[in-house]
Amino acid sequence: MAARKKTPGKTGGAPGKKGTAIKKAVKRANTPGERRVHASDAETVREITTTAERVHDSIAKGGRPDLALPVRALSNVSYDEKRGYLEIGKQRKVRTLSVNTVKSFAQTLRLMSLSKELVEGNDFATKREAYYISKNWDDAKFDDQVESDATMDDIEALFSVSSINREQLRFYAEEHSGSVSGPLIVVDRDNTGRVARIDCTNFGSGSYSVPNSVEELDFETSADFVLLIETGGMFQRLQSHRFWERSNCILVDMGGVPTRSVRRFVRRLSDEFNLPVYAFVDCDPYGIANIYRTLKVGSGSAAHVNKFFCVPKAHFLGVTPQDIVDYELPTHELKDVDVKRAKDALKNDPFFKGHPRWRSALEQLIEMGVRAEQQALAMWGLNYVIDEYLPRKLENPSQFLP
Amino acid sequence: MAARKKTPGKTGGAPGKKGTAIKKAVKRANTPGERRVHASDAETVREITTTAERVHDSIAKGGRPDLALPVRALSNVSYDEKRGYLEIGKQRKVRTLSVNTVKSFAQTLRLMSLSKELVEGNDFATKREAYYISKNWDDAKFDDQVESDATMDDIEALFSVSSINREQLRFYAEEHSGSVSGPLIVVDRDNTGRVARIDCTNFGSGSYSVPNSVEELDFETSADFVLLIETGGMFQRLQSHRFWERSNCILVDMGGVPTRSVRRFVRRLSDEFNLPVYAFVDCDPYGIANIYRTLKVGSGSAAHVNKFFCVPKAHFLGVTPQDIVDYELPTHELKDVDVKRAKDALKNDPFFKGHPRWRSALEQLIEMGVRAEQQALAMWGLNYVIDEYLPRKLENPSQFLP
Repeated sequence: MAARKKTPGKTGGAPGKKGTAIKKAVKRANTPGERRVHASDAETVREITTTAERVHDSIAKGGRPDLALPVRALSNVSYDEKRGYLEIGKQRKVRTLSVNTVKSFAQTLRLMSLSKELVEGNDFATKREAYYISKNWDDAKFDDQVESDATMDDIEALFSVSSINREQLRFYAEEHSGSVSGPLIVVDRDNTGRVARIDCTNFGSGSYSVPNSVEELDFETSADFVLLIETGGMFQRLQSHRFWERSNCILVDMGGVPTRSVRRFVRRLSDEFNLPVYAFVDCDPYGIANIYRTLKVGSGSAAHVNKFFCVPKAHFLGVTPQDIVDYELPTHELKDVDVKRAKDALKNDPFFKGHPRWRSALEQLIEMGVRAEQQALAMWGLNYVIDEYLPRKLENPSQFLP
Repeated sequence: MAARKKTPGKTGGAPGKKGTAIKKAVKRANTPGERRVHASDAETVREITTTAERVHDSIAKGGRPDLALPVRALSNVSYDEKRGYLEIGKQRKVRTLSVNTVKSFAQTLRLMSLSKELVEGNDFATKREAYYISKNWDDAKFDDQVESDATMDDIEALFSVSSINREQLRFYAEEHSGSVSGPLIVVDRDNTGRVARIDCTNFGSGSYSVPNSVEELDFETSADFVLLIETGGMFQRLQSHRFWERSNCILVDMGGVPTRSVRRFVRRLSDEFNLPVYAFVDCDPYGIANIYRTLKVGSGSAAHVNKFFCVPKAHFLGVTPQDIVDYELPTHELKDVDVKRAKDALKNDPFFKGHPRWRSALEQLIEMGVRAEQQALAMWGLNYVIDEYLPRKLENPSQFLP
């Protein structure tokens, strides 16, 4: 293929042929019970009703009802490697009905009521639709979508103690989730209950898109691991060259910070089939401290749902700061904002504070003063990443960063 | 469903049951010959070789070789409704090899050489990969991707006179293309030639993603028309409620300005099956002058490829400025940038200048001073769009804006 007159220092030695390409019998999740970690629709409706009745009773008795919401901030978050995710703490903010809070209190209750209608009608609303629906509420109209989104977050936080999340309340984001290729059958149903068996090896030059809510999907797979990829361009390369066949893995395009549904999708694969998960991202503070950190342990601002929306078994395959040296990758200079992000992670992020190997890697990156993209490997030939880089890495997963 | 105590003025009268839901036999493209409007791989390689030989011969004779590139700007573009797209004119800029241009001349030739390798090796490079590959070129390295992208645009313009486009030169963008649902079978092949038959009614809660290059796809469909949708949220609603079944149409999520591959995908459906194409977008200058205009007649900056990458048969279903009035939609104020965009379109855009009905609609929008999103219809109930708005509109496609 492309010009390859130079090769990086460590290219000697073809990767050993591991057993990864051997086809195995399709595995079905052998712990179906564990999958339903979330509340059922009936439980969701019951929780909404109970909360509303409590408010109603309080008012009926002449009291001032309140809602106790978990504080969602890094200051109320802890990380324990054994639990595996950023866990929300016990701090609560109590919202009491008063003259000042009556509108937001009413909006919260109306949005909860909408959620109940949606669950009972087997429908959903996008975040934007939920905002527009309020335009037909006399005194409780939201002024803009920022308001309705914030109220939705509060409601999710309120119900998270009962293991109910936003998707189960039937409020969906509009974002495009990731794409998937490889030895995986997704069993899905549409609104009418019709079953679709989706074979993720059978998309020609295309791929499968993860839907907005993945809780009701079933899976069958014979894969050995999941490989998560930051950029659509790299995913295209691995997908079109059937890397998933060669390495018997499921490829997932994250397209930047993985959406909640991608995180949940991969988490379920990881839990139900005991599959290792490897992340292949750019070597820069954003790739490490935002994309990878969010994938593995969740985020600070949504700590109330991290329990479900992260993949604690994930490991960091690359690109590592040391790879920049070993593979003589073309780089870009770190900007001030990059350096700030890396230093913030070292100083304030419980995840990085808990992992000495990550601290060293971030310090090395700051010291080098540069970043490198995963597609920079193309300098050594377009398919160097397939023929050399990934096989060599996959020989030693124990070397991956935690 | 959601609160619907008010309804807009014109909601009376259920839409007539048209014959759209009647299943017809699957149609296959009856003009397969017309589909291959583009050059074959062999022709692409021949064109590259011929161009390179011309440059080489000129140098060998002691001359100064040049490359004549079409000028890509609105000033070199015309619109004729019968042709149906913004057509590039005859202005050329000639790049002659000199001391000042030697590097960019060399880069152009090396990128053409890479393209030839890619076609011959049945591979592709993303725009970013092409940039990184140059890092292994001694004196012709690109300093940043803006440079390599611009050179790639020049090469595409150069070869566009031979009906060869960037995708056929095997340079792909990294963007996520649109999603598709409905009565359509896509027949695709992967790099190994394996055939995949993809049934776009069988994705459960998900949908099919349009790949980056669609020229080699084959289609089978029984649909009556194609409905293009601006936002992922509205697409989700129509898709999950199987609007494609009720109206026997193919739903396509554009996700903003449609990518080249989405435009080409829909164009082929429109040409080969003689399908009407309707666009359902936000009512704002961006939705009208960027999204819809680019869909229907292409763009000014890429006028050299508009011939293939637009859908002249498209019509504008809504949301129209008059819909804002008729359906009493919640609105946002037009910002200065919106007003400027609309005025620019009226003054400078050959498409809008050529259509009096569009001029009136844009003037009405500027006069009203507001914009409305398609999801604003949710004010009248989440599924008002499915039960009322779209069926009523689809009774009179002749009323759609041109």
